[in-house]
Amino acid sequence: MDMAQIGATPKAGVCRLAMTDVDRQGRDLFVEWAKAENCSVAVDMLGNIFARRPGKNPDLPPVVMGSHLDSQPTGGKYDGAYGVLAGLEVIRGLNQAGAETLRPIEVVSWTNEEGSRFPPAMMGSGAYTGLLDAGAILETRDLEGVSVSEALAEIGYKGDVPLGGRLLDSYFEAHIEQGPVLEAENKVIGVVEGIQGIRWFDCTVTGMEAHAGPTPMSVRRDALLVASGLVQEAISIAHDHSPDGRATIGQMIVTPNSRNVIPGEVTFTIDMRHPDAQALSSMAQALNTSCEAANRPGIAVALAEIWHSPPTVFDDGCVSLVERAARDLKIEHQRITSGAGHDAKYLAEICPTAMVFVPCKDGLSHNELESAKASDLAAGCQVLMAAVFERANRPE
Amino acid sequence: MDMAQIGATPKAGVCRLAMTDVDRQGRDLFVEWAKAENCSVAVDMLGNIFARRPGKNPDLPPVVMGSHLDSQPTGGKYDGAYGVLAGLEVIRGLNQAGAETLRPIEVVSWTNEEGSRFPPAMMGSGAYTGLLDAGAILETRDLEGVSVSEALAEIGYKGDVPLGGRLLDSYFEAHIEQGPVLEAENKVIGVVEGIQGIRWFDCTVTGMEAHAGPTPMSVRRDALLVASGLVQEAISIAHDHSPDGRATIGQMIVTPNSRNVIPGEVTFTIDMRHPDAQALSSMAQALNTSCEAANRPGIAVALAEIWHSPPTVFDDGCVSLVERAARDLKIEHQRITSGAGHDAKYLAEICPTAMVFVPCKDGLSHNELESAKASDLAAGCQVLMAAVFERANRPE
Repeated sequence: MDMAQIGATPKAGVCRLAMTDVDRQGRDLFVEWAKAENCSVAVDMLGNIFARRPGKNPDLPPVVMGSHLDSQPTGGKYDGAYGVLAGLEVIRGLNQAGAETLRPIEVVSWTNEEGSRFPPAMMGSGAYTGLLDAGAILETRDLEGVSVSEALAEIGYKGDVPLGGRLLDSYFEAHIEQGPVLEAENKVIGVVEGIQGIRWFDCTVTGMEAHAGPTPMSVRRDALLVASGLVQEAISIAHDHSPDGRATIGQMIVTPNSRNVIPGEVTFTIDMRHPDAQALSSMAQALNTSCEAANRPGIAVALAEIWHSPPTVFDDGCVSLVERAARDLKIEHQRITSGAGHDAKYLAEICPTAMVFVPCKDGLSHNELESAKASDLAAGCQVLMAAVFERANRPE
Repeated sequence: MDMAQIGATPKAGVCRLAMTDVDRQGRDLFVEWAKAENCSVAVDMLGNIFARRPGKNPDLPPVVMGSHLDSQPTGGKYDGAYGVLAGLEVIRGLNQAGAETLRPIEVVSWTNEEGSRFPPAMMGSGAYTGLLDAGAILETRDLEGVSVSEALAEIGYKGDVPLGGRLLDSYFEAHIEQGPVLEAENKVIGVVEGIQGIRWFDCTVTGMEAHAGPTPMSVRRDALLVASGLVQEAISIAHDHSPDGRATIGQMIVTPNSRNVIPGEVTFTIDMRHPDAQALSSMAQALNTSCEAANRPGIAVALAEIWHSPPTVFDDGCVSLVERAARDLKIEHQRITSGAGHDAKYLAEICPTAMVFVPCKDGLSHNELESAKASDLAAGCQVLMAAVFERANRPE
């Protein structure tokens, strides 16, 4: 709640855009708290902040926890901040208990996970893991022409630590679910197995504009009639790949969009998701087949894939560790797949990774009304602590 | 083509908005041509212009032909102007032939049929027939605050003849079809039996916005999924009332219209038409039933009727006269219903009325590309002449 004061909005949310002065205040508070726990703090050239608690063997790769402190323009208190502060809470707990670990433990706050001011999202973790190009990232500019490099310097978080280039033992990220499943199932912990793959398509249906009155039904080339059929088919495809398949038509533009003119062109988007790459590919293929079948004399359907993010499957060992921790602590839990992207997606490419989800009210996030129960948040910390403690004491 | 020079657009269309100086130029040219044919010209208080050729019995109600000289902002050369000039051509032909008629013949140019600058459409004929309130019409203002009364005075066409209040024998309006039927059927003349009834509806489907990734298909309240089903059903209803039923969903607004957000609200319009009032009512009822059936937990469907224009059935005698004229002249013709409104819709309320359609290229109108064949336009004049001549010589 102290962190949520920084960038607090009148509607009880948070506006803490990456690399703004408000972000700086949040970072300063985190660093202050980490130092109070005797952590050493390192900031890399992209502003990612690492707070380190030493292990008995300082040469072993660290077990890393974390998430991000930046928010959406009308974001909530928990998305991101919870994962960073849960990591800090684990360190506090270990300090209070006087518990040592074999391996060092770190909490990281990744720069600009949201991508609201500077696209793309998951910028800091993407550059850290080498999956985004750091040079290009530093030159990325916001709408006012300020570069990432300048913005980081401005807030005093353009560190001198090189980006990545060291081994991490593992990565654990706690996060609100951002979906309704745990709440609906009355579960406190989601043991996250991976992140859905996403394929984004743009579809354009071209027919012919004509007057609503004099044009007989039989000669119409109604782009919206065809598009509305494809909306239904795309959603059917997700149901055919139940329960994990998802299809969303979020955007639709009708042209000329006039009450008494038959639409000549309709463009719409299709967002398809599945945690299994093969199933996702089968969904994409079915969509393509539907669009091809919708072509007919006078109607042209063009489908273009504009983005493809393959599914992420988290490390079996780390996922089991989280599951065991929840079971041992007798906390209601279930396995779950993340529907949204997270820094853990990039980290999973370079080290064993898992995530811990806690429920959020009505599944809401990216919304000032985002909310989560204190007891659930505490349970998430306990599970995170148990999993990380075990991992950090794993024999060499 | 001379008339089309007035307000000609670079794309070969016409912009002759009602009661502008360009409209005045068009009116002046019409009046000049009418006077050259020895017509007496009367202008009423709404700017409707009547050019009169005397009959042998001046006391008999006149046979009236006409349409309008105003256009859409990006209109064509033929919509409206054809009907006025075809009437004038009939008078020219009678003059050249030295043919007398028992009844007087008039050509009328109705003020502001399009309604583009001053709504509503068919203003002059609506006020003339007493179906629109002349007082309110005169006070109607354009976007710049100019009233109809002021605009008419400004162009010198606020006449002193009272509005209506006299008997008309009959009304014949020649017009381009504004649809594709005659062209597709290779017909030169459409014998217009009436004007479709129109019912306009607004429909709002309310569900719940949610993230495209984490929200399972089973718990979604997808407004676009429901709306797209209703689009298909509305169009099916038109097919169920084939061949005359029409349904058009011309406008659709998706909210929030974001690629990765399940739409929480979709609003769309439904335009339903049928020449038969009972069939149109059955269509509206079926639509209502579909919308009610689409209501379900978490999805609300609201349907509101915002306009209802009942079908117009033209006078049997006048329609048969047009048909006989086409047959006697051996011109390919068929009966047809108008899908668009015309001044004839109002005139049909006060006197026996019929219309003569000629094909237009690709069914296009309200478009600068509007086009019609000279030979078809000439055929329309011949049919109009034959029908009007017979009607005007009908025994007392």
